[in-house]
Amino acid sequence: MIEKVKFELTEKDIPHTWLNAAADIGGIAPILDAKTGLEVSREALGGTMPAALVEQELSLEPEFEIPDEVRQLYAQWRTTPLYRARRLEKALNTPARIYYKFEGTAPTGSFKPNTAIPQAYFHKKDGKTGLIAETGAGQWGSAIALAGALFDLTAKVFMVKVSFQQKPFRRTLMETYGATCVASPSTETEAGRLTLAEFPEHPGSLGVAKSEALQFAKAHPEFGYTRGSALNHVCAHQSVIGQEAIKQMALADDYPDVVVGAAGGGSNLAGLAFPFLRQQKQGGQRVRLVAVEPASCPTLTRGRIAYDYADSMGLTPLFRMHTLGHKFVPAPVHAGGLRAHNIAPLISRAVEDGLMEATSVRQNECFEAGVLFARSEGILPAPESTHAIRGAITEAVRCREEGKSEAILLGLSGHGDFDLVAYEKYFSGVLPNDALSDEDLDRGLASIPALTLA
Amino acid sequence: MIEKVKFELTEKDIPHTWLNAAADIGGIAPILDAKTGLEVSREALGGTMPAALVEQELSLEPEFEIPDEVRQLYAQWRTTPLYRARRLEKALNTPARIYYKFEGTAPTGSFKPNTAIPQAYFHKKDGKTGLIAETGAGQWGSAIALAGALFDLTAKVFMVKVSFQQKPFRRTLMETYGATCVASPSTETEAGRLTLAEFPEHPGSLGVAKSEALQFAKAHPEFGYTRGSALNHVCAHQSVIGQEAIKQMALADDYPDVVVGAAGGGSNLAGLAFPFLRQQKQGGQRVRLVAVEPASCPTLTRGRIAYDYADSMGLTPLFRMHTLGHKFVPAPVHAGGLRAHNIAPLISRAVEDGLMEATSVRQNECFEAGVLFARSEGILPAPESTHAIRGAITEAVRCREEGKSEAILLGLSGHGDFDLVAYEKYFSGVLPNDALSDEDLDRGLASIPALTLA
Repeated sequence: MIEKVKFELTEKDIPHTWLNAAADIGGIAPILDAKTGLEVSREALGGTMPAALVEQELSLEPEFEIPDEVRQLYAQWRTTPLYRARRLEKALNTPARIYYKFEGTAPTGSFKPNTAIPQAYFHKKDGKTGLIAETGAGQWGSAIALAGALFDLTAKVFMVKVSFQQKPFRRTLMETYGATCVASPSTETEAGRLTLAEFPEHPGSLGVAKSEALQFAKAHPEFGYTRGSALNHVCAHQSVIGQEAIKQMALADDYPDVVVGAAGGGSNLAGLAFPFLRQQKQGGQRVRLVAVEPASCPTLTRGRIAYDYADSMGLTPLFRMHTLGHKFVPAPVHAGGLRAHNIAPLISRAVEDGLMEATSVRQNECFEAGVLFARSEGILPAPESTHAIRGAITEAVRCREEGKSEAILLGLSGHGDFDLVAYEKYFSGVLPNDALSDEDLDRGLASIPALTLA
Repeated sequence: MIEKVKFELTEKDIPHTWLNAAADIGGIAPILDAKTGLEVSREALGGTMPAALVEQELSLEPEFEIPDEVRQLYAQWRTTPLYRARRLEKALNTPARIYYKFEGTAPTGSFKPNTAIPQAYFHKKDGKTGLIAETGAGQWGSAIALAGALFDLTAKVFMVKVSFQQKPFRRTLMETYGATCVASPSTETEAGRLTLAEFPEHPGSLGVAKSEALQFAKAHPEFGYTRGSALNHVCAHQSVIGQEAIKQMALADDYPDVVVGAAGGGSNLAGLAFPFLRQQKQGGQRVRLVAVEPASCPTLTRGRIAYDYADSMGLTPLFRMHTLGHKFVPAPVHAGGLRAHNIAPLISRAVEDGLMEATSVRQNECFEAGVLFARSEGILPAPESTHAIRGAITEAVRCREEGKSEAILLGLSGHGDFDLVAYEKYFSGVLPNDALSDEDLDRGLASIPALTLA
């Protein structure tokens, strides 16, 4: 007889609805037009968003039905496994029971296709023949490339030039799925051309790539613009993670005392944690929700709650959320998915209301945790995911010190197969390990628009 | 309602025994000592092999019990999924039902840990504190590194120098698991030192790396030497693949008319196909077994059945098998795992006896098939696996032309996340596409030792 390490569901258990956390925490503050300071209209949002997604974005309904066509494509990899980390528990000598929900079995190796697939579906339903996205190291871009292939839509991805040149693997993955990948800044858009005119050797940034993608979508209305994180509908799509985890914890005859996730744009954390918050609101057991972010990009722990842009160029409307200032430039840590000046308004609201805790960790202690995890559990975690592992280890060590046998659930958002350069640098001892300096924090916060002071 | 695309088992379905195909095909010819021409003794084999594996190697018993400790570690990723390739079927417009068994969900991305784990287990039971392996691009080395981490054994891997330098990712993966990776030829062994003395810039080869590993194991008896393919016990360990597939085909209410696998050393193909052969021998439905090999390394389709060494330096005993000659140097195709001059004696025997068919394919048609597969099914296949896909597509097209609705099962032996350089070269049109020339074939065959003529 062997001890159970995986708690397995079947295709029948793929959720039928997405949960909308806005219903649980009383919604978010209105989204404002930066020019007028007035609430953004449905029509304005609809300029770059299919009507169905606009509805989801603004809705206070508790759930949205998942179309069968989307569930059918989810079945290409869902449900994802939930593991009991028995070997990690032994390595830590902790009385805690540690579980992890692993999203790395998705075709592109992370949780991103959970929302890329439905966004492609709704854009196609709206008559679009193409998808457009910006991407940094390529997680979101490859999810959109996959979605394009599965829905027979042309996918075009503006990829930050330095990643395009130095990390060609995800670019080739996108091309294998049939997508076109463009190094940004490019000459294809005004934003790109202006940037290049000013600074021909510009290495690119997510802000510039996002501006290019938005301008391209505007000029090519047959392309639907897609969003990888932060917005309400994106968080809702990711709720498939937490819904499955609840069923799997029941198979384990257990329930988490703590749920720990990495916090970047916030959608992976939201997807894992908010379904547990709903359980609690409906009379279920109390569960602590813990967001773990990089000390170099401490949006929740040192940012300000304010209205700010979601992009660095100020093209989006204003959202009320934790922000380090939209001009904040995070250090180039390898957890590229966590380098965001802002976070999902839903996560921000949960932290503000005391429904979720936040903590920050240094880069090297995350990789240290990632290596321990690989040697214990066999799975190489993505740098983003090592933040959740580090947070869970901290909880497990506390349990040992306090002699408590708690259940800890962590979100393993993706595998690290494409991140081995980062691990190599960690072993070589050359990874920067700094927290954000007060000066850089103040410089970032100074870019929050004045509206926030009103 | 959605159509089923995955046929899912649980940990309870992890096989309890390994099937020994030697029992089904009447064993293989005796293994001979190259110096004496006499059958190799159990004691001689035991010099580098744990006693339990020697027994498995020579046994005609139909099955071997899988120790609970091995099943427990299998549970870190097994059972693996079996898919119905509905989207690929549509793309091919075929009446065939195509299924694939996917081994890429293993921690190192391929089927190799299926045997690395038990080999580590038996070496540890024999008192070894370390594992030793040679590796080309790194699939076997990373499986042994994983096994070392899971059994708390020191793992040391001699990696072909050109891969060590040009493909550092799998090396870093091995190091993340705690293994030591040495570029071969190295100065650590006599074989390495002699090679470097003769040719200081030697880029390394599997033959040299294998010699180094064997010499290192001899000089350090605390290290157990491990084998990635070809031998009977390795083929037996891989039978977990086919045993699961049989249960999963039953869940699909179907049974394969054809089973297709890529043929390199032969263990992945053996693991998938031979359990179906046993079903047939026990009165089950007739099933065609098809081996697909690279046209540049056509061991089964153009090689000779003869006694030959399993390594290029002539350090191993002699095995009767299909061989291109142990001095044959295959072209540097990207399906590195299929670049073997020889094949598992069990596979060779099955082909000789007409129990299995063999066919060869060109490199570019394999990548073409891999890209179609990625765009249809979402999964990026390893270059080795694209051979099985190509073979399955050929069968599916035949079904379309003949108007037959057959069931085709293909072995998807691993994912291609570490092989994107190869895909990039395919898209750039620079991949060599040659079949083996008659001259190179003759040159290889000339290295088959004279014993074969006796």
